[in-house]
Amino acid sequence: MTTILEAVPPETAVIVGTGLIGTSIALALSASGTEVWLSDTDQGAAQLAADLGAGKLLPSGGLEAPADVAVLAMPPAMVAASLKAVQRSGLARCCTDVASVKELPLRHAAELGCDLTTYVAAHPMAGRERPGPAAARADLFVGRPWVICAGEETSADSVGLVRGLIGACGAQVIEMTAREHDECVALVSHVPHLVAAAVAAQCADAPSRALALAGPGLLDVTRIAAGDASLWTEILAANALPVREVLLAIADQIGAAAAVLADIAVGQEDSAKRLTAMLETGRNGVSALPGKRGGPAPDYAVVQAVIGDTPGELARLFAAAGSAGINIEDVRIEHSPGLPVGVAELSVRPEAAARLSAALAASGWPVASPA
Amino acid sequence: MTTILEAVPPETAVIVGTGLIGTSIALALSASGTEVWLSDTDQGAAQLAADLGAGKLLPSGGLEAPADVAVLAMPPAMVAASLKAVQRSGLARCCTDVASVKELPLRHAAELGCDLTTYVAAHPMAGRERPGPAAARADLFVGRPWVICAGEETSADSVGLVRGLIGACGAQVIEMTAREHDECVALVSHVPHLVAAAVAAQCADAPSRALALAGPGLLDVTRIAAGDASLWTEILAANALPVREVLLAIADQIGAAAAVLADIAVGQEDSAKRLTAMLETGRNGVSALPGKRGGPAPDYAVVQAVIGDTPGELARLFAAAGSAGINIEDVRIEHSPGLPVGVAELSVRPEAAARLSAALAASGWPVASPA
Repeated sequence: MTTILEAVPPETAVIVGTGLIGTSIALALSASGTEVWLSDTDQGAAQLAADLGAGKLLPSGGLEAPADVAVLAMPPAMVAASLKAVQRSGLARCCTDVASVKELPLRHAAELGCDLTTYVAAHPMAGRERPGPAAARADLFVGRPWVICAGEETSADSVGLVRGLIGACGAQVIEMTAREHDECVALVSHVPHLVAAAVAAQCADAPSRALALAGPGLLDVTRIAAGDASLWTEILAANALPVREVLLAIADQIGAAAAVLADIAVGQEDSAKRLTAMLETGRNGVSALPGKRGGPAPDYAVVQAVIGDTPGELARLFAAAGSAGINIEDVRIEHSPGLPVGVAELSVRPEAAARLSAALAASGWPVASPA
Repeated sequence: MTTILEAVPPETAVIVGTGLIGTSIALALSASGTEVWLSDTDQGAAQLAADLGAGKLLPSGGLEAPADVAVLAMPPAMVAASLKAVQRSGLARCCTDVASVKELPLRHAAELGCDLTTYVAAHPMAGRERPGPAAARADLFVGRPWVICAGEETSADSVGLVRGLIGACGAQVIEMTAREHDECVALVSHVPHLVAAAVAAQCADAPSRALALAGPGLLDVTRIAAGDASLWTEILAANALPVREVLLAIADQIGAAAAVLADIAVGQEDSAKRLTAMLETGRNGVSALPGKRGGPAPDYAVVQAVIGDTPGELARLFAAAGSAGINIEDVRIEHSPGLPVGVAELSVRPEAAARLSAALAASGWPVASPA
């Protein structure tokens, strides 16, 4: 499916909608040498994007020759009408969009009689909490997935142009059907938003004495619920049934947890074990996520050594490990501000842990292995 | 309730349990000049804490004179037995604990016939994802709430000693009944953990193609579900009924969202408005949380100016605002790596926004006001 030859940046592009996503794409394309034209129903937004160096304002009379690609960077419900307008005006050779659902704009486009051979439905999996061109970043998409939902009718030329655009943004192309995409984002994006909103809603009327005790955990769980309610209504409504299905599964799961807690309260046998099993399943889910933060890979053993806060200390530690012929797989430094010492956590293959501890202890390092 | 005179650090303290919390308290107390003795059933953990400078190992024969305070830093179910042992041995004049629920250890302590006049049930609202002494930080509690649940029977002397300890850790005392504490932490700590686990559980068996699309939102929502399942079972079991009550409310809320999505799918009137209202309640909840991240206070207007990446640029911007007699309430810089320009977002009183825009534009700054 991947053809490397196709991945050259487009020579010209029109960005229709200079919000966060549109302006970020424009910045990345401009940096790659693409000639970028900017357009937005809000003239101020387009001007701000231009001031940021994202491109030039699209002339009101249009372009002399069609651009290679038009990027329709707007909410899902507006994509098809914009696609129709761009195709009528001959503004670009092909179009792509960035909407967070894919079945709806494709269905609308078919209903409006758009040319589907030159429309590549797509969705870059990146964003920020803050909207608008001022929040745009040229590196927003670097290393992120960017889904393409090309159908049988989509022309290879159009897909190639959009692949080139995605490559210029530094993102990774993932091909899916529109239905698969919508089911995936229901799970990884839309449902988390609604669940975060449900937790946050409990805080809306809570006494301030309770909220004063909130720590980073609650802030993390609820953070995305701060997103724009109208925009999210549109996103969720456009993917209503896939989102509903996952939501019901989660409501079941939460109800089951509540039932186990009731069993625990009356001392029912094995109820605590059932709760632990639920929590373990959650831990497995977190482990399955890409790019998770956390400790070293579970198949390494960790040896901890207390180190002084002096420049040569780590080098000496590694030298001691090296002399013992032990390969350090990962290292992590824990250091409390104001303390003259810290802890180096050395990850090694399990069979090397005892040898490393012995080698470091022999060189005078206080060592420990965490449970 | 607050008596400033009481808040001097204890002269001597024993830390029973040198995990993350115990060792962090020990580090903070040692830094305040308290003589700290360390004890743990895991000798390696106590030794690592001592190596970090948290204090000295508690002699196996005990101390010559009772310490001012003993900190019982262990899971909730173990507190009462440890309290009984410390009181029997005369190790300290008073005891406090750090367990994340408060009714259970108080009830157990009464059942065991402990001296409740010298036991100050308490809970520092701070932590890290990583357990153990190696993760300890002397500044873990700085500026954080630290709940004291003193009853009628608790002696003023004991409360004073524990207040001194809390002050030495840089934390803020909040007084509550044990029941109020347990209901509050159910909402702000225990329920978020279980909800995060429920969302994460959906990811445990999801196809990797779906999880590859996960962004920071899902990672944030599920992050705390990575916590130790056994420890969290104990915490949740000890607070089962308050947690259950909030969980049921959230399951209802999620079920209601699922029902609205079903209505939206069949085009029922006002269904989208109902979804927006739910999301707005969630936004209100996020706004109610302390220490939330996010934009400027909503009663300010924001003026955006594109600025060059040169040292004097911001100073010139502020000078231009100052010359126009406008007070800048807040400023935030958006800057994309590699771009020669950024956006300064200036928050001002709404009535000053137009004047500021005009003043900056007159001085040659490209300005915009976001929608």
